[in-house]
Amino acid sequence: MTRGELEPPHRLRPIRALPGRDAVEVIDQRQLPHALRTARLDGVDAVFTAIRDMWVRGAPLIGATAAFGVALQARADAGDAAMAAATDRLQASRPTAVNLAWALQRMARVWAPLPVAERAAATWAEAEAIATEDLAVNAAIGRNGLPILQALAARRAAVGGGPLQVLTHCNAGWLATVGWGTATAPIYQAHAAGVALHVWVDETRPRNQGASLTAWELGQAGVPHTVVADNAGGHLMQHRRVDLVIVGCDRVTARGDVCNKIGTYLKALAARDNGVPFYVAMPTSTLDLSLSDGLAEIPIEERSAREVTHVVGRAADGEVLEVQVTPEGSAAANPAFDVTPARLVTGLITERGLVPAQEAALRRLMETAAP
Amino acid sequence: MTRGELEPPHRLRPIRALPGRDAVEVIDQRQLPHALRTARLDGVDAVFTAIRDMWVRGAPLIGATAAFGVALQARADAGDAAMAAATDRLQASRPTAVNLAWALQRMARVWAPLPVAERAAATWAEAEAIATEDLAVNAAIGRNGLPILQALAARRAAVGGGPLQVLTHCNAGWLATVGWGTATAPIYQAHAAGVALHVWVDETRPRNQGASLTAWELGQAGVPHTVVADNAGGHLMQHRRVDLVIVGCDRVTARGDVCNKIGTYLKALAARDNGVPFYVAMPTSTLDLSLSDGLAEIPIEERSAREVTHVVGRAADGEVLEVQVTPEGSAAANPAFDVTPARLVTGLITERGLVPAQEAALRRLMETAAP
Repeated sequence: MTRGELEPPHRLRPIRALPGRDAVEVIDQRQLPHALRTARLDGVDAVFTAIRDMWVRGAPLIGATAAFGVALQARADAGDAAMAAATDRLQASRPTAVNLAWALQRMARVWAPLPVAERAAATWAEAEAIATEDLAVNAAIGRNGLPILQALAARRAAVGGGPLQVLTHCNAGWLATVGWGTATAPIYQAHAAGVALHVWVDETRPRNQGASLTAWELGQAGVPHTVVADNAGGHLMQHRRVDLVIVGCDRVTARGDVCNKIGTYLKALAARDNGVPFYVAMPTSTLDLSLSDGLAEIPIEERSAREVTHVVGRAADGEVLEVQVTPEGSAAANPAFDVTPARLVTGLITERGLVPAQEAALRRLMETAAP
Repeated sequence: MTRGELEPPHRLRPIRALPGRDAVEVIDQRQLPHALRTARLDGVDAVFTAIRDMWVRGAPLIGATAAFGVALQARADAGDAAMAAATDRLQASRPTAVNLAWALQRMARVWAPLPVAERAAATWAEAEAIATEDLAVNAAIGRNGLPILQALAARRAAVGGGPLQVLTHCNAGWLATVGWGTATAPIYQAHAAGVALHVWVDETRPRNQGASLTAWELGQAGVPHTVVADNAGGHLMQHRRVDLVIVGCDRVTARGDVCNKIGTYLKALAARDNGVPFYVAMPTSTLDLSLSDGLAEIPIEERSAREVTHVVGRAADGEVLEVQVTPEGSAAANPAFDVTPARLVTGLITERGLVPAQEAALRRLMETAAP
């Protein structure tokens, strides 16, 4: 893999290590899509706040940001007590994010055995390695997904059907990672390769990550796209206006059940009912071979009802504020994820290649060497 | 049918003929759920504005309101030219509403043959008849649906499962009709009959009729309910938290394909995948025996992109305003309805009884006398 192949098409980066090694710069995603603002995080306190308050979000990006938080702590005070306290603090920023624990444990394995004086340099290098690896994994997912998009684009072009029509749900884009994104990596690579395509962007209630983040980043990259209500996807598929669905994932079980943003299952059902391929972009780090039945075994986070009852947006005067859409006194429920059974998944696009959502194939994949 | 049976449980009326026969009072639904305001419509201009600007909405309610518009015109000037002009004007208020044309034609059949002096009284009586009939149809739908809810409630209670769990989409409630609603009529009758139940209310993006109207009217009637994002229904069904789905319809074909609010099809797919009964409340006036294949034959209205890109709600200071959720430059699409194939429909609850979504049964139903 050459360095050139690793460069994502988007100019911006959700996280950037600053040359002085005394801070990282992140995009403050709370302001998107209405304003592009960056923030300089110069210590573990700033990193903690940025993760907790969702300036950065998306499992891979949270992991990388936390890793830099450890490195910044090592620069300030790399003693055992301070490092352990910083790790605990960062772990508490978003307790349910698997990548957060993974990144902090990986960092601890680096700094714990080292003399205090060597920790700052080693942890910075390790945080940079985590970021670089995430970029490489996503680039590989893009490469492995590209032929699928090219084949479907050719099929549509053969019947004079215009650009390839892709539908995605939530934001599994570069804003959720260090770069490329997962579900968006094949889209960006196809776009860069000259494949004419158009993306249907599910708005993804209740947090509107599609409407606010995916639409914004596709727009930044010049990829043609249209935002639709989550309700619209079935209708679009019935009318042959979707060639494939591609989504990210939060956890995948050994038999290939996919836990992802709430509503993914409904799109998978519609895809199956209409013969539309349904692909999941999956870094193999998301595969949890200890689980089998996703529906029975994966706990689903119930988030704040306020995400359903209130919507954040930009008023006519430019102010970003929250409005309530429900009546006073009406309760709301907010399950954040659902599970799409493996039987509805056409294939998992991983950094190691395309694999069916089947236990034997997934176990075989994990026995092969990483690319 | 006694008069007592016709009284819906909700105290409020979406339209009310005033005793002086010189105006009707409607709820200005644009303000809901944040404020309950009524408006007095005293002539055809006011009625035109109320329909066009969606102070009143829902096919049956639009029809009844337009009928009173004709009656109010007859009071002011019942000459042929004025009556024809008023009819044309009202017809143009919401061109795609089938009930509007139906009500105006029915009114014309009454006034056209009469001497001018008799038209005011006759048209007022006919408008009242249209309203009364709508109430009776919905009450009958409620009666015919009640045993379904009672049986499913008994099944859940038998396993100690608590209240009956109903899921509905959009607003097929009393706010869309003259009273009772269609999909909500069995719910209100079951609630009145002492059946313990709880309703999952799909927020129904992009116009949020569930979050703003259905939640409000269920709250007014004291029916326990919870608003959820449209994305959540599949997950709820997977976890046995829905006993039945009941929705309204905008048009049903001879073979039982159901055109209803966008997103209905996705819920029907999830219901089928999880063995959850999926019922459609259908006044037989909604049945279009001239159509067969709903997907191929029913044109789907594409509404303003602004309904997707902007959300209306109440700000912290109490002001009701609109906020934008998408980036500048991102397009949006807004198909307003979708078609649920008959194969996914458990049954149609009509004022003439419960009927399967099958052509022979539907044609037989229409050959029987109205109740």
